[in-house]
Order: sequence, then structure tokens, then C-alpha cells
Amino acid sequence: MDSHRPAVVLAPDSFKGSLAAPDVCTAWTEGLQRVWPHADIRARPMADGGEGTLAAVLAAVGDQGSRSQLRVRGAGNETTSAAWGLLEQPQGRVAVIESAQVVGITDAAGMRVPVNDRSTRGVGELIRAVLDSGVRRFMIGLGGSSTNDGGAGMLSALGLVLLDANGGTVAPTPAGLAALAAVDATSIDPRLRETDVTIMSDVSNPLCGPRGATAIFGPQKGVTERDRDDVDRTLARFASLAEAALGRPVAQLPGAGAAGGLGFALQLVGGRFASGARVVAGLIGLDEALHGADWAITGEGRTDAQTLLGKAPFIVAEAATRAGVHVSLLSGALDAKALPELGARFAGCFALPDAPMTLAECMANAPSALANRVEQMARLFAASRR
Amino acid sequence: MDSHRPAVVLAPDSFKGSLAAPDVCTAWTEGLQRVWPHADIRARPMADGGEGTLAAVLAAVGDQGSRSQLRVRGAGNETTSAAWGLLEQPQGRVAVIESAQVVGITDAAGMRVPVNDRSTRGVGELIRAVLDSGVRRFMIGLGGSSTNDGGAGMLSALGLVLLDANGGTVAPTPAGLAALAAVDATSIDPRLRETDVTIMSDVSNPLCGPRGATAIFGPQKGVTERDRDDVDRTLARFASLAEAALGRPVAQLPGAGAAGGLGFALQLVGGRFASGARVVAGLIGLDEALHGADWAITGEGRTDAQTLLGKAPFIVAEAATRAGVHVSLLSGALDAKALPELGARFAGCFALPDAPMTLAECMANAPSALANRVEQMARLFAASRR
Repeated sequence: MDSHRPAVVLAPDSFKGSLAAPDVCTAWTEGLQRVWPHADIRARPMADGGEGTLAAVLAAVGDQGSRSQLRVRGAGNETTSAAWGLLEQPQGRVAVIESAQVVGITDAAGMRVPVNDRSTRGVGELIRAVLDSGVRRFMIGLGGSSTNDGGAGMLSALGLVLLDANGGTVAPTPAGLAALAAVDATSIDPRLRETDVTIMSDVSNPLCGPRGATAIFGPQKGVTERDRDDVDRTLARFASLAEAALGRPVAQLPGAGAAGGLGFALQLVGGRFASGARVVAGLIGLDEALHGADWAITGEGRTDAQTLLGKAPFIVAEAATRAGVHVSLLSGALDAKALPELGARFAGCFALPDAPMTLAECMANAPSALANRVEQMARLFAASRR
Repeated sequence: MDSHRPAVVLAPDSFKGSLAAPDVCTAWTEGLQRVWPHADIRARPMADGGEGTLAAVLAAVGDQGSRSQLRVRGAGNETTSAAWGLLEQPQGRVAVIESAQVVGITDAAGMRVPVNDRSTRGVGELIRAVLDSGVRRFMIGLGGSSTNDGGAGMLSALGLVLLDANGGTVAPTPAGLAALAAVDATSIDPRLRETDVTIMSDVSNPLCGPRGATAIFGPQKGVTERDRDDVDRTLARFASLAEAALGRPVAQLPGAGAAGGLGFALQLVGGRFASGARVVAGLIGLDEALHGADWAITGEGRTDAQTLLGKAPFIVAEAATRAGVHVSLLSGALDAKALPELGARFAGCFALPDAPMTLAECMANAPSALANRVEQMARLFAASRR
């Protein structure tokens, strides 16, 4: 390495609740430049398919990508403006969608409507509009959704017809699906058959049952204990009718329970699950950035043993190791119990606090603390090379 | 460096209120051995002349030193057992004394007596006993004392006679000295003239006045605001009489106000101030340990801008830089404001917390956190060398 101009890859996930991944890169760059004013800094903000995925991908691809807004229906049937991205790739154009842009659990308007009346219609509207523009490759990130409709809303916006016992249509919501008697897939958008959908999610739960969407993720969305079993049965009946109509049994597949069943619905129309972080790493050119680099730094809000199950820092560590690049971890917090396992993966795991402090203090000072901490790591890294 | 057997010097100060310096070394050794099982670890626990100095020095010199206990009078005139150390050095035998072993502010028995009745007699008794054993070199650490007697007690135990207007003796306490009219130095121990006394302290206050012992350190020892000016005047009169009797004007010298005036009294009998940490570094053979080392690590409970004014980690950094050895800092806490200055001195400054936590949590887990943190630093250090 040129000791005055080391090549350093910065590939953090977002520090949830505190800083987006591009902002982490900005802070780290400031800290590194105090040690190496002329460092070759390669900022590749990461994401895991959840919140921040679109921003991270667009930041990395530069003028090979563009951001658009589309007006669709939000979870509570209100009109909302959803961002999505279009990437120009050698293999053709790819749309990047975050379902949370449409039905996000942090969206106040949607959350005012009871969970039994929330729907993923808008996600289907967004997909249809993108299909209209001629795109046939999708990367759809799940995560952070407020809905629990089994993806019925999305499918209905794409042409699936949901009927009650009298032949009337039912709303694609848990409440509406309670009266579901038949499903007609004859009008489903035929362009879906020629479309490639990659689902970015690390959730592996099935749609229904004790490990299903309603049981595991329902409570945080507002499903009451009283409703839980009824809703689970409603989704199971919807799933078996929809599976029969479309000829694909996917409700038991891992991930069907992601995003309140969007994982089921997307697999029903041919989508395939992939590790969100791994897909993002591909989209942002992480391997290319690592080529010939001297050092890589990754991190996230909090690192524990779960991180090694495929979260962004793990994917970055994998890629760096493949490229023969030392990779260190700098997260907001570390679970000390996981350090033995983490230590084998990373050239040092570090945390943000400079001193005993509360989480709020830590988050309030995150940018300057991130710059300081990475600077100190760089001083140690630089010294031991001299 | 042999990448499997690097030579690492560990030279922390104590983490006050949490871990003694030798215990910090133990924790760090455990952490380093996880990375380098065969590392050449050179533990040199440091101290600054205050609490822990004796233990650190004895730990470093091994069988070149011994620890003894002597029964003397404590600050409140009670009998107490004070530890002191004897080192066999090429230049002869050296006694290491911590004044806090005799008149420590953490000594409950002494603290039950009002500050105006506390005295440093026992320090003089300890010095006399060591002189009796033939030793003529002393390293005396000040710091953590409960007394404010101007060192009158120590001097009286060494033969200084304190008289009131009627020719009766007065007690060597602030209360007694209020009646002081004359000082007779003719009986002072003549062996002091052939004795070399090094005073280990970083205090630079004069004996009296607005920056003096009573004004600055009196309140924490129990001097009331009402008594303050009277006591200051009493010490000033004692000082001028004692100076005249011994022919040395030292009350205005920096450090005369250390340990409630022990700094004055020791200078009055020829003692010379030295940086506590620098003296300890010499006693423990820090330069020798650094010779040919690959890395040094120092630290303390909390590091801020004061550290660069001569505290133990600064002295270690100085010695390491002189020896051409990279030196990193690992403290319980860092003052982020001091990082710009610290960064120029250290190959990385690190703190103990793995996550947001309270000071109590941090201190409770200090040993394992110290091992973990130094392990992670070593992983980064090792990686960048490969």
C-alpha cells in the first residue's frame, strides 16, 4: 500500500434510528482524511433490502441510476408518494422498490387505519406502473411494512380478483378476506410471466402458523391477541385459494411470511428470495470497489450474533475476505457475547461510545463520534504498517 | 516483528475506582493472548506517585523489591499499619513511600477526627524508621492525603520542636499551630542532610494564598469556609518560622501545597519534586521494556487534556516515542474534545464501552471489557501488518 494514499472501502449499513448509510460514509471519510488527507476512499453505503436500500443503491451507482416518485395508495388507502429507483445495468434496466416506501410502518397516515383494514394495493400499483414503463427486472425490498394482508392487495392491483360467496368483490385486507370464497386469477397481469423479481429480505418465516406472519410480526403491527387466530386462518384460506388459482404452492416456503405476506404474494407470481445485503452488494459494485483496496470498514447500529446470519456487515466481510482485504467493524454498539465469533471474521470490532453514556447521547453525537472513532482506528492501522 | 510472537509492552495507570494497574495488565494479557498465544508480553503497570504507586513498583521489580509494614500514628493519632517498599537498585537501596498509606483520605479512622486535629506525624515516624534501617534514598508519593498541617507533623516526628509563647510544645496540627510562637530546628534528624528525597507529585500549588493547600484542597478534607483564612494564616506563620529555622525559603515553590503542605515540609528538608509518573517509569524499567518492542499500550480510568500535562499515559507515550515503538491508548473513557491533541501522541485512542452503558455497568465489567477491547485492537494491529 502507498502509506499516504491507502485505498479504503467504506461499506456500512445504516445506523438505524440515527444515521443513514451514506451519512455514515461521510462521517468516516472525514475521520480518515484527518489521518490520510489523500486517501483513496471508496464509499459504498450498504443496505439489507429494508429501509435505506434505495438510497444506498442510488448513491453507489451515480448517474447509472435515477430516482422517481409515484403516487399510489398507501396502507390505509390514502394517496401517498412512493420513491423507486431505476438502474441502467449491463443486463438491462432494473427497478429497485422498497415496499416500506408504500406501506411503511413509520408512515403515520397508514398507521392511523386499523391493521385489519390496511392493504398492500399500492405496492401492486407501483409494480404495474413500472411494468408500463417497460421494465421487466425488479429488486423488491421487504421490511418495515405495516400490513398483514398476505399480499392480497398487491395481487389485486395486479389483476387477481377476490370474491365473496355471492360473487361480490372483497377488499384486499384482513377484514375483507374474512369473507373470501373464491379467487380468480384469469386477469392477472400477463407481463408478470416475463418478469424477473428478486425479493430482498432476510425473513425466513412461513406465511401462517405459529411461526407465521401474523403470530410473529402481527403484534407489532397492531394485531390483537383476540384477532390473531382468526386472521391467521383467514390468510391461510386466502393462500390456499390463491395458490390453487395460480398453480404455485408457496405459503410454506421460507420468507412467505415476510412483510405481512408480501413474501408469499411475490413468490406466487414467480419472485425469488435473495439475501438483501448480498443483492445490494452486487448492485453497488462492492467487489469492484474492494479490488486492490488496503482496508475495508463496515458496521451497523448494533452488532450481535444475528449479524453473522447474513446481515450487511457479514456480507461485506465475506466479500472483503474473498478479495484478500482486511475488514474491520465499527458499529454503534457491540454485543460483547458475540465477540468471540465476530473476532474471527473482522480485523477488529469497535463501538461508538468514547465513554459511559446513554443511547440517546450516543445517537445525538453519532456523526462526530463516528469520525473520531474511525480516525483512531486508522491511526492504529497506519502505525502498525510503518 | 515476528508476527506470531510480537513484543508488547503493557504500561497502564490504574483505572481509578475500578482496577489496579497490575489487574489491567492481567486483563490485557488475556486479550492479547487470544490473538497471539505466544506474544512476548512485558507488563509494566504504571502509577503517578499517588495511590497504587507502591504496588506498581513492587510488581515491576519482582525480587529486586520487598514490601514491609510499619506501625505508625495515622492522621487522627490512632495507630495504623503503613506499607512501604524497599528496592535494591544498582545505585543502592531506595525506600518507596506513599504518604496516603499513613494519612490517606480513604482511611476511616483518621477521617473521624476533625481536619484541624489531623497530623502527618506518622509520615515522619515512617521516614525515621527507614533511616534507622540505613536507607538514605527515598521516593515519596504524595496524593490522597487527609491532612492540612503544612507537614508540621512529619517535621516534628523528625525532630523539629514547635513552641508556644510560653515555651510549651504545641501539637503539630492546624489547631495546635494556631498557638505557635517559635520553631527550634536544632534537634532535627541530622541524617536528613545526607538523604536524597524525591517527591512524586503532579501538584504545583504553593503552600498558602488563594492557590494554596487550604484554599484549593482544604474543602475536600473538611476545612470549613469559616476556618479557611485563619488556617491559611496559621500555615503561613508556621512556614515562615520553619523556613527561618532551617534556612530554606520554599513555601512559594510549586508543589509546596501538595498533600496539605507535606510538599512544603519535604522540600524544607531538601526533597526535590519530580513527575510521579516519570519517577515510576524509571523505577519499573520502562525504557528497558520498550527496547525492541513492537507495540506499547497504556491507559487510565479517564483520559482528557490533563493527561498530556504529564500523567502516566503521557509519560509512557514519551518513552515509547523515544524508543521508536508505536503506542496506543485504551482508557475507561475518553474526553472527545481532547482527541485532536491525543491523536497526535497515540497510535489510536480507544475507550472501554462496547455499547451505551452507565459508568457503573462499565466498571462492573471492566476486566472482561478490557480483555475484549485490547483483543480487538490487536486484531486490527495484526491485520495491517500482514
